[in-house]
Amino acid sequence: MLKKGNSALMEAVAAGGMSAVNSVTGATGVMGKRRLEDRSTFDKRLRFSVRQTESAYRYRDIVVKKQDSFTYILLSTKSSEDNTLNPEVMKEIQSAMATAASDDSKLVLLSAVGSVFCCGLDFLYFIRRLADDRKKESIKMAETIRTFVNTFIQFRKPIVAAVNGPALGLGAALLPLCDVVWANEKAWFQTPYMFCGQTPDGCSSFTFPRIMGLASANELLLGGRKLTAQEACSKGLVSQVLWPGTFTQEVMLRVKELVGVDSQVLQESKALMRNTSRSSLEQANERECEALKRVWGSLQGTDSILQYLQKRTELC
Amino acid sequence: MLKKGNSALMEAVAAGGMSAVNSVTGATGVMGKRRLEDRSTFDKRLRFSVRQTESAYRYRDIVVKKQDSFTYILLSTKSSEDNTLNPEVMKEIQSAMATAASDDSKLVLLSAVGSVFCCGLDFLYFIRRLADDRKKESIKMAETIRTFVNTFIQFRKPIVAAVNGPALGLGAALLPLCDVVWANEKAWFQTPYMFCGQTPDGCSSFTFPRIMGLASANELLLGGRKLTAQEACSKGLVSQVLWPGTFTQEVMLRVKELVGVDSQVLQESKALMRNTSRSSLEQANERECEALKRVWGSLQGTDSILQYLQKRTELC
Amino acid sequence: MLKKGNSALMEAVAAGGMSAVNSVTGATGVMGKRRLEDRSTFDKRLRFSVRQTESAYRYRDIVVKKQDSFTYILLSTKSSEDNTLNPEVMKEIQSAMATAASDDSKLVLLSAVGSVFCCGLDFLYFIRRLADDRKKESIKMAETIRTFVNTFIQFRKPIVAAVNGPALGLGAALLPLCDVVWANEKAWFQTPYMFCGQTPDGCSSFTFPRIMGLASANELLLGGRKLTAQEACSKGLVSQVLWPGTFTQEVMLRVKELVGVDSQVLQESKALMRNTSRSSLEQANERECEALKRVWGSLQGTDSILQYLQKRTELC
Repeated sequence: MLKKGNSALMEAVAAGGMSAVNSVTGATGVMGKRRLEDRSTFDKRLRFSVRQTESAYRYRDIVVKKQDSFTYILLSTKSSEDNTLNPEVMKEIQSAMATAASDDSKLVLLSAVGSVFCCGLDFLYFIRRLADDRKKESIKMAETIRTFVNTFIQFRKPIVAAVNGPALGLGAALLPLCDVVWANEKAWFQTPYMFCGQTPDGCSSFTFPRIMGLASANELLLGGRKLTAQEACSKGLVSQVLWPGTFTQEVMLRVKELVGVDSQVLQESKALMRNTSRSSLEQANERECEALKRVWGSLQGTDSILQYLQKRTELC
Repeated sequence: MLKKGNSALMEAVAAGGMSAVNSVTGATGVMGKRRLEDRSTFDKRLRFSVRQTESAYRYRDIVVKKQDSFTYILLSTKSSEDNTLNPEVMKEIQSAMATAASDDSKLVLLSAVGSVFCCGLDFLYFIRRLADDRKKESIKMAETIRTFVNTFIQFRKPIVAAVNGPALGLGAALLPLCDVVWANEKAWFQTPYMFCGQTPDGCSSFTFPRIMGLASANELLLGGRKLTAQEACSKGLVSQVLWPGTFTQEVMLRVKELVGVDSQVLQESKALMRNTSRSSLEQANERECEALKRVWGSLQGTDSILQYLQKRTELC
Repeated sequence: MLKKGNSALMEAVAAGGMSAVNSVTGATGVMGKRRLEDRSTFDKRLRFSVRQTESAYRYRDIVVKKQDSFTYILLSTKSSEDNTLNPEVMKEIQSAMATAASDDSKLVLLSAVGSVFCCGLDFLYFIRRLADDRKKESIKMAETIRTFVNTFIQFRKPIVAAVNGPALGLGAALLPLCDVVWANEKAWFQTPYMFCGQTPDGCSSFTFPRIMGLASANELLLGGRKLTAQEACSKGLVSQVLWPGTFTQEVMLRVKELVGVDSQVLQESKALMRNTSRSSLEQANERECEALKRVWGSLQGTDSILQYLQKRTELC
């Protein structure tokens, strides 16, 4: 079913190997240590508090730190490279957000461990599945994405994104579904959907034109133009650009200011700003996922992903 | 009902005292002189023209100058500090706009005497009322704001805002309900709703995200970030920034150009641009005022205003 | 019916004379040569291919080059000056776009021969008609514009605009109905509707406020402010500004990248971005054309066009 020239890549795909340098290793090491310590006291605490199971040690691909008045979710994927999103990563994020929705968190802070924020969909995972049964798997994939994106659309507490590094594809498309977006000056943004033969996802076909006008939106969505953090800020994708050296401290300072606000006021404010567009966003998500089913369900669509993966491998 | 620590402030509130330096005094002096001259010829003119009652001497908190083809409304509040808005100020503006709507004015020019444009709601007034009967007064206040904001939403002739100085809270939120906004380079813009425990007003929860995207809008509405005139211009809140030295002349030059346009063309143009969003704006206004009733109706809400007033007093 | 002072102009109008320097002459010369060559092989090719009739030699006011995977439409008007739009020019563009919609073109590239992109409506043509029968002709004109603008709204393949020079009035208003807009750094943009006593057209009363907010939109639509290419880009009217020296090559490079994308993906992406706003745009177009009928149908409206033409003549 797949073209011959892709055989080398396909072997890697079949083997499930992802030997490339994991750019988040260093930082993951540090986080890993803390998670280990957490684990050592696991049994004791479990007896007293069920809510503690929401803490860091529970997840594989994300780190969740329940702070005093907010939930800190950090991407740090083990089952994928460069914090890319496969069904398992998405389910972990959804689960952490569900917990934050019902506990006393005033907001969710979303970031990532290491130097990468999120590189979009985990195409290595998806291509393996599509190779099995294109029609069936393309529907399953699109449904997974739909549920994941709806989690953001329907979340009633503020979501603050701290974009520590590159945000690609769905990783960038999700930002307009967050409420505040602070970016490290080193971060960059790209939605190269056309290069991987894909239609837009994460409601970007709806949110990008509304934020910056169609001319700019298409430069990103059709043209795949790469934006610096400053450019993303002037286009309205990013609230503010922060200095790399003190990025996390600056974010924490501002988050602490926000959680000083009465939680009723925070949620009422978010409701005022979001409620009128929620159903439009859900519909946009629905339409995008239907388009993805059609595109991925075609031979052409699968080939495009393969070609994209190959090109990316050559570049790395 | 109110916390103890606020007693000093509450005394001032009870006394109705507003002894702080009134930053518009200098300019008000000048205006006062002109108004005095107007008054001296009051009786004579009254006999000949009823329309003259719309002129400068009629109002206490605003100055209204009916020019050849437009109405010039200037905030110059006596019943509040820093051109803040209480029910009396709002009613005067509504009355002046109602007159301008039905006379031969082609547009309304809105500005302020002195170095301040408008510092939003008059919290000293509101806190005095809330201390009396929180539930009842919070409903009354929200209804007053709703009617005032609807006056802007429903006005059929162009509204030009000449922002001479700082525009805060509702004073900034109203700008997207105007049609052209020219700002003095010294002006600045802030909507510190969260600091006074308040949800957004003036349709800002609807207009700000549509103008600049949610990431930027929340930087202002949730984060209370202060914008310079240039920043407000690049975000789309301001049409153009004008040089302080010649601000009023520049504004007048441009207004004169605008009133050179046929009034049918002006009104048809405004209708084309506004009519489709009028009901959405009215609904947004309605939702915001309902939220304000809930927030102000709670003990927490009243406390937040007190804390804000106290902090402001300490800073001054 | 028309004022006396306009008699000199009216003579010119009556004579149908347009002796002013045609700024596109130089380039037209070059194009004319190519078209002549095309014509010489006309008879031969006609026998083999009906589709070839879509090629360059068929039109008078535009040049159409059917490329491998896209259709290149260049304004190069003979029946009007400065690529202004009269019913004949509009009909040619509509015809070329209808062909591109149904053939194997993946997209349409819209540009102009010479140093001018499009200077909006051909007022010399319109004033001649209005002088005949104001009521009847104003309806006819508005209907022509409505159909023309709907052609852009309803086009299902991406439209790329390469703005080589000044874009005025409808020539600028059309840009938000295109999907990607690249501008030569020398290009500039203006919608001086008020100066010619006209209400906005081309859906600009709907698209401009949504792209840049009402404050900025009115600076252009009411104030007639002229924007440089860079300013138009930062306002969101233009996707990217390209260097004059290599403008066409840069555009071609990017277009070739775009047509490398699978045509299903291109059309699905455009559908995702456009389908939700299509009916709103059609309604905006309808409303604008109804306003134009009212304005042009009045004596005042016709006079305003005459005064505008006179002023323009004096300036040239």
